[in-house]
Amino acid sequence: MSTKGLLIVLSGPSGVGKGTVCSALRSRVPDLIYSVSATTRQPRLGEVDGINYFFKGRDQFLSMIENDQLLEYAEYVGNYYGTPRDFVEETIANGKDIILEIEVQGALKVKEKFPEGIFIFLTPPSLDELKDRIVGRGTETQAVIDHRMSVAVDELDLIKHYDYAVVNDEINQACKRIESIIIAEHCKVRAQR
Amino acid sequence: MSTKGLLIVLSGPSGVGKGTVCSALRSRVPDLIYSVSATTRQPRLGEVDGINYFFKGRDQFLSMIENDQLLEYAEYVGNYYGTPRDFVEETIANGKDIILEIEVQGALKVKEKFPEGIFIFLTPPSLDELKDRIVGRGTETQAVIDHRMSVAVDELDLIKHYDYAVVNDEINQACKRIESIIIAEHCKVRAQR
Repeated sequence: MSTKGLLIVLSGPSGVGKGTVCSALRSRVPDLIYSVSATTRQPRLGEVDGINYFFKGRDQFLSMIENDQLLEYAEYVGNYYGTPRDFVEETIANGKDIILEIEVQGALKVKEKFPEGIFIFLTPPSLDELKDRIVGRGTETQAVIDHRMSVAVDELDLIKHYDYAVVNDEINQACKRIESIIIAEHCKVRAQR
Repeated sequence: MSTKGLLIVLSGPSGVGKGTVCSALRSRVPDLIYSVSATTRQPRLGEVDGINYFFKGRDQFLSMIENDQLLEYAEYVGNYYGTPRDFVEETIANGKDIILEIEVQGALKVKEKFPEGIFIFLTPPSLDELKDRIVGRGTETQAVIDHRMSVAVDELDLIKHYDYAVVNDEINQACKRIESIIIAEHCKVRAQR
């Protein structure tokens, strides 16, 4: 077995179930560390620094960008969100695996800075199924649904940049496939040298 | 999931437990097809052609060599043994995985002809453990034991030509790792395209 941990990047289109699969995986594999994001937004009630997020001032965050301390970042509704490089690197240096759940564009940015990561694309069983899930969220207008579907179809084309594709047909099966990928990656001869 | 099957080549030094792991794996994964060897030796009582071996005349076997119908072959105590290419290719074309249990040199010959195979090297937990297993077989002389250990040490160096290394510390763990490798390989984006 490799003594170094792995960075597992779990991505896929909006509505595919990344969050649900990631939560299920964390309860099945308690040793798996969850990558904590940095953000400039204010903590909400009950949120703990270093557990839910690393809360940063805007200047601190801009300095992290400047010093290449983020594997990726994005601005959303006036706040910055990003993946601190240090936390990932310290975790894997300690021999632990770390999982990062992230949307498709963010994952591709991570790949540029951290190509040795294991990039897993979670796919819907079919486009109809994905549409049902997006519609099933409730109050979206037809225009929003159409836009989300169009983005999802574009994102599915980016699967070619990933190492693995896992179909999220059934939560336990999807988790089992991801667990298998992690076990197999630790057995790789390249990883062991 | 890929619609094509995979050729899984399970190899490793003499005494590491290839046969035991392979049998256990076959009962855990009933869909896995076992590669049947061709041989020129006479069938023993109860052996069935196409199940235990494909029994061939010497001329037939030589013609298979001539026509590149074997992924590898070797001569042993006056008889030929080899891996028929057709059986492997038909099985994977039908979408089924096939496992070939073979010694280290044979596996490397298979890799030359079938580089798309998944090459798994079964390793002992330690050299001491391997020695115990070789000695434990019983009636070998010290010279035979020393020779086998020396061959095993040389063979361990060939691990670099393999895709995966699986430690045979405990049979169920070794099987679980190999099952994980098979599941992961079916999720590879390359394999799905």
